[in-house]
Amino acid sequence: MAEHRFQPTRFYNTLGPAEPALAIAPGDTVITDTLDARGVDATGAALATRPNPMTGPFFVEGAEPGDTLRVTIERMTPSRDRGWTFSVLAPNVLDPERVAQMPERERVEWIIDREAGTVRLEKPSERLRDWVLPLAPMIGCCGVAPALGQAISTATSGPHGGNMDYRGIRAGTTMSFPVFRPGALFFLGDCHASQGDGEIVGTGIETSFEVAFRVALDKGRTIGWPRGEDDECIFTVGNARPLDQALQHATTEMLDWLSRDYGMDAVAASHFLGQTVRYDVANVFNPAYSVACRIARQDLARAGAKA
Amino acid sequence: MAEHRFQPTRFYNTLGPAEPALAIAPGDTVITDTLDARGVDATGAALATRPNPMTGPFFVEGAEPGDTLRVTIERMTPSRDRGWTFSVLAPNVLDPERVAQMPERERVEWIIDREAGTVRLEKPSERLRDWVLPLAPMIGCCGVAPALGQAISTATSGPHGGNMDYRGIRAGTTMSFPVFRPGALFFLGDCHASQGDGEIVGTGIETSFEVAFRVALDKGRTIGWPRGEDDECIFTVGNARPLDQALQHATTEMLDWLSRDYGMDAVAASHFLGQTVRYDVANVFNPAYSVACRIARQDLARAGAKA
Amino acid sequence: MAEHRFQPTRFYNTLGPAEPALAIAPGDTVITDTLDARGVDATGAALATRPNPMTGPFFVEGAEPGDTLRVTIERMTPSRDRGWTFSVLAPNVLDPERVAQMPERERVEWIIDREAGTVRLEKPSERLRDWVLPLAPMIGCCGVAPALGQAISTATSGPHGGNMDYRGIRAGTTMSFPVFRPGALFFLGDCHASQGDGEIVGTGIETSFEVAFRVALDKGRTIGWPRGEDDECIFTVGNARPLDQALQHATTEMLDWLSRDYGMDAVAASHFLGQTVRYDVANVFNPAYSVACRIARQDLARAGAKA
Amino acid sequence: MAEHRFQPTRFYNTLGPAEPALAIAPGDTVITDTLDARGVDATGAALATRPNPMTGPFFVEGAEPGDTLRVTIERMTPSRDRGWTFSVLAPNVLDPERVAQMPERERVEWIIDREAGTVRLEKPSERLRDWVLPLAPMIGCCGVAPALGQAISTATSGPHGGNMDYRGIRAGTTMSFPVFRPGALFFLGDCHASQGDGEIVGTGIETSFEVAFRVALDKGRTIGWPRGEDDECIFTVGNARPLDQALQHATTEMLDWLSRDYGMDAVAASHFLGQTVRYDVANVFNPAYSVACRIARQDLARAGAKA
Repeated sequence: MAEHRFQPTRFYNTLGPAEPALAIAPGDTVITDTLDARGVDATGAALATRPNPMTGPFFVEGAEPGDTLRVTIERMTPSRDRGWTFSVLAPNVLDPERVAQMPERERVEWIIDREAGTVRLEKPSERLRDWVLPLAPMIGCCGVAPALGQAISTATSGPHGGNMDYRGIRAGTTMSFPVFRPGALFFLGDCHASQGDGEIVGTGIETSFEVAFRVALDKGRTIGWPRGEDDECIFTVGNARPLDQALQHATTEMLDWLSRDYGMDAVAASHFLGQTVRYDVANVFNPAYSVACRIARQDLARAGAKA
Repeated sequence: MAEHRFQPTRFYNTLGPAEPALAIAPGDTVITDTLDARGVDATGAALATRPNPMTGPFFVEGAEPGDTLRVTIERMTPSRDRGWTFSVLAPNVLDPERVAQMPERERVEWIIDREAGTVRLEKPSERLRDWVLPLAPMIGCCGVAPALGQAISTATSGPHGGNMDYRGIRAGTTMSFPVFRPGALFFLGDCHASQGDGEIVGTGIETSFEVAFRVALDKGRTIGWPRGEDDECIFTVGNARPLDQALQHATTEMLDWLSRDYGMDAVAASHFLGQTVRYDVANVFNPAYSVACRIARQDLARAGAKA
Repeated sequence: MAEHRFQPTRFYNTLGPAEPALAIAPGDTVITDTLDARGVDATGAALATRPNPMTGPFFVEGAEPGDTLRVTIERMTPSRDRGWTFSVLAPNVLDPERVAQMPERERVEWIIDREAGTVRLEKPSERLRDWVLPLAPMIGCCGVAPALGQAISTATSGPHGGNMDYRGIRAGTTMSFPVFRPGALFFLGDCHASQGDGEIVGTGIETSFEVAFRVALDKGRTIGWPRGEDDECIFTVGNARPLDQALQHATTEMLDWLSRDYGMDAVAASHFLGQTVRYDVANVFNPAYSVACRIARQDLARAGAKA
Repeated sequence: MAEHRFQPTRFYNTLGPAEPALAIAPGDTVITDTLDARGVDATGAALATRPNPMTGPFFVEGAEPGDTLRVTIERMTPSRDRGWTFSVLAPNVLDPERVAQMPERERVEWIIDREAGTVRLEKPSERLRDWVLPLAPMIGCCGVAPALGQAISTATSGPHGGNMDYRGIRAGTTMSFPVFRPGALFFLGDCHASQGDGEIVGTGIETSFEVAFRVALDKGRTIGWPRGEDDECIFTVGNARPLDQALQHATTEMLDWLSRDYGMDAVAASHFLGQTVRYDVANVFNPAYSVACRIARQDLARAGAKA
C-alpha cells in the first residue's frame, strides 16, 4: 500500500511495450504529473512533442495477460493557471456544406482559477465576457500496452483505452482495462480542465495536472473494452468509427458485464438495457470515436442488484 | 384559445399531405388519443396497421411554408394497463459477430400501474421479479407534412420530425418543427410508457395514450430540423444514418440557434458548445437514427443568456 | 406489344401514388422525353423545378403488390447539345479538413456532340483544352411508387429505386423493381450524358433525353431491392447511408438472388461471392448512397449457371 | 541492382520499428517467401501465429522520413497446392437481421493447380462441383513501419499500408508508401491465390507464396496514403471505417496526385474525376476498411497526360 511520488522525465506518444518508468504493487497509490496535449508542463516548459505525450508506463506487479487492471482516480489538480483550446468546431461535426463557412481555427488561452475552481476565456469577445465555468478535470488519454506487442498512437484509442477523451474519466472514477502484457504498463496524460461531450472543438481545456491514482488487480478476470464506475453509475467504453460501431462495442461489453456480474441472461439484460441505458458521446473527433454505455446505480438497485 | 377534444377515426402510416382531421388556431389546446405502434387502442381494439399509425393531421390556421410550428406537450396519460416491448437487443446495436448468439425476438407484455406511476414486466424471469420502473411517458413519432409534397413512412424520420423516438419529447417539452405546407399538418402517435436511450430493443414500452398539446406559430421564423425545449434545456434533433451524420445535422442546427437567438457568432458558439454540449442518442434502431444536441439552461445562464 | 410515343406535360418531384400519365401493357414499348435535373427540356424551356423532375408515372396493367416490374432500357438519345455539371468535388467525398480549401461551386456547361458521340467542356481551362470524352448515357433516377403510399423525393432513393445515379442503368440494361402498388407506377428522369462512379461532383453531365424502354412483369415474384442485368453482368442495388449499409442491402439481395435463381445455398453463394463479387459505388452524394453488388455472367457460367 | 534470395526465419504480427531482416538498395530485387494468414509455410509447417505473420522488414538504404518507397511486384508464385477460406459471408456485409440465419463459419480447403493456373474447392457441394477459377494472386498485407514509432497489427491498415486486402496489389503493380522511418522497413505477407472485392468471407484463398519484388526510392517526395499503378491504371488507397471515410482519404490523395503530377488544379481535377473515377471496395472486413480510387490510363491519356 505504498504511496509513490513519481516525477516523469520521459514521455511517450504511443501506448506500447516501453521500458517501465516505475514498478508498483496492487494497492499502491501514485502521485504524478502530466503534460498538456502538446507537451508543456506546469512551468511552461515544452518537455515533449505531440500528440498527447504520456506519463508512465507503470508496471503493476503480478499483472498478466487475461487479468484486469483497475485504476482509481483519486485526485486531479491543475498544475498551472493557463489552459488552451481550439477556437472553432471540428469540420467533422458539422454538415459538410457548412464547413467552408467557418472561420479559421486558432489556439485560444483560458484562465484557470484554482482557488475558485473555475475556468474562463483569457480574451473573451464581448458576448462571452462574463462567462465563467466550473473546473471539471478529466483524463483525456489513459490505458495500457495493447495486444500483440502493438504500440498505438496517443491520438487514437482501442480495446486498450487510449485517447478516449471521455469527461466521465475523472476523480472518483475507477477505470478497468484488459491486461495484454506482463505488468499491464499503464500510461496517462492529456488531462483537461473541462470538456463537453464529444470534444467537438478538437480539444478540452488542455493543461498540465497533478494526478493521484491507486491501482488494483482482478486476477483471472478478462474484459474486452475499458470499463468504469463511480458512485452514480457503471459504464463501458467502445472505441471505433463510425459512432455506430463504437456504440456496438460498448453495448456488447455491457451485455457481458450484466451477464457475468449481475446475473442477467441475454433477455433480462435486453429488458434492463432497453429501459435504462444511457449513451454518452465521449469523443467524436479522434481517429477512433468513443461512446460510453452507461447505467445508473439507481437502476441497478431497482433491478435488485447489490453492486 | 379553444380546447378541442378530438377522437380520431382514421390513422396514417405516413406523414404527408393528408386531409386535415381538425383545424385549430394558434393558442388552441387539443386533447386526443393515440394508438400503440401496431394500431391497438385503449380498449384493445386493433384500429390500424403498422408501422406507428398516427393521429391527425391537425391543420394549424395561418401556418405557411417558412414558418415554425411550436407544439407544447401538456400531458401524457396512458390509456390502458398493458404495454409491450421486444425481448432482445436489436442486431444493429451489437457487434455483428455476437448477433447469432442472441435468442429469438419475442413480444413481451408489461403492466402499467397508472395509480402508482410505474411499469413492470407481466411475466418476469426470476432475476427481474422485483423490478419496477417509474412511468416515463414520451412521444415516439410526431411531426409535420414534409417538403415537396412527400409522404414519408412513420417508421423513419427527417427534417419534418417523424419517428425520432427521443425520450426528451414528453410532457413539459415544447417541440418546434419547420412548416413545409399550409396548415403545417401536425401528426402524433407511437407513444411509450418508458424507454432508454436509443430504443435499442426496437421498441419503448408501447401503449395507447391520451395526449394534451397546445400549438403556437412563429411566423416568418425558419428552422432546419426539429428543436425542443423544457425547463432544463434546449435541444435540436438530427435524423440520419450513421449516428455521425445525425450528430452533424443536430450540431449545425444548434449552431444556427445560438447564432440567431443567443447572439453567438461561430467562434463564441464553438467555445460555448465545446465546453457545455450534451448529445443524446435518441434512437439507434429506425431507418434514420436520431441524435439530440442538448444545452442546459444553466449553461445558457452562465453565458449571460436571458432565455 | 404496342409502342407508345409519350410526350409528358406534367412532372413529379416525388415517386409516389400520382395519377397515371399513361397505362401500358407488359411487352409494350414507350418512347418518351426526360427533363434535366433542374427541369429544362430539349428546347431550353424550364418546364419543372428541382429536384430531378420525373416523367411518368406509367401504369403497367396487371402489376400488383408482390410482383416484380422489369424495365428494359432500349435506347437513350440526348435531345440537346448542351449539358451541365458542378465544378468541384462534393464536400462529403473529401477529408473534412480539406473542404475549406476548395474553390466555390459553380455550374459549368458541356458540349454534347451527338454525331461524334462525345462530350467536352464548353470553356475548358488550358489544362483540359483537348479533353474529349465518349458519350455514355445513363438514367440517374428511375423507380416505382414506394410502399405504404409513401411519396419520396427524387433527390433520394430506397427499395423502390429512385435517385440511384448508377452508371450501370443504361441502354441494354434491364432493371427490376419490387411492385408496391397496383400498376407499379414507373417514373424516370434525371438522365446523364456521362458520369463517373459516385457522382462525386454532385451531378453527372445533366441534360434532356429521349428514352425508349419496354416493360415486362414477373407475376408473383417478390424482390427486396432494385436489380439489373445486361449482357455482361447481373447486379443488385442497395440504397442507404453509410456506404456500409448500402453494401449490406445489395449483398443480402444478391444472396437471395443466387439462392432462388441459381440454386446456391448460403455456403455455395458465400464461396461464389467471396471470389467473384464486384462492388460499384453508384453514388456517394445523395441523401441515400447507392452501392451495386455485381457478378459477371462469365463467373456465373464458370459456376455452371445457365442464365 | 542486386538480386537477393531471402529466406525468412522470423515473422511479425505488427508493422513497426523491428530489427531489419535484410538491408537492400534502391534498384535491388528480393525473392522471398510468405506464410499464409495463420502462419503456415509451403511445406505445411506452422512457423508463426495469427494474424497475418509478415516477412521482413526490409531496410531500404537511403530511405528517410518524407520520402516515398516504391515497390514493384514482379512475380507471385504459390508455393503449395492447398489454400483455405472461410465458408460464409462475414456478418458485417449482410443486413443485421439476416445474420442469425447464416450457417456457422468453417474453414474450407481449396486445390491450387499451379500448372493449369486454377483454383477449385477441395470438397465442393454438388452445386459447385465443376466450378474452376483462374488463379489471381495478390498481396493481402504489405506496407512500412508507421509514423510515431507505432507498431500496428497486421489485421488492420492505415497510411502506412498494412492489411488492405486489395486484389489490385498483384504482379505488375508498383505500390508507393510514405516513408516514416529511416530505411522505410518494408513488410509483406498474407498473400491470396484469389479474392473478390471486399474480402467478404473474411479471407481470400489463403496460401503461401514466393514473391519477387524490386524497390525504388522517390527522394523528397511525400505522399499521404498508399498509391499504386500498373499498365492499365493508377490508384490510391484509403483505409478507415466506415467505407465513406476510406473513400474520402483515397479521393483526397488522388486530388493531390492529379495536382502535383498531372497539372490539374482543384477544378480541373474535379471535372476529370467526376467523369472518370472508379472506386474499388478493396476490403470491407478488417478493422479498417480499404477503398481504392482508380483512374484508367486511357482516361489520363484522353486528358492529355503523358504519364
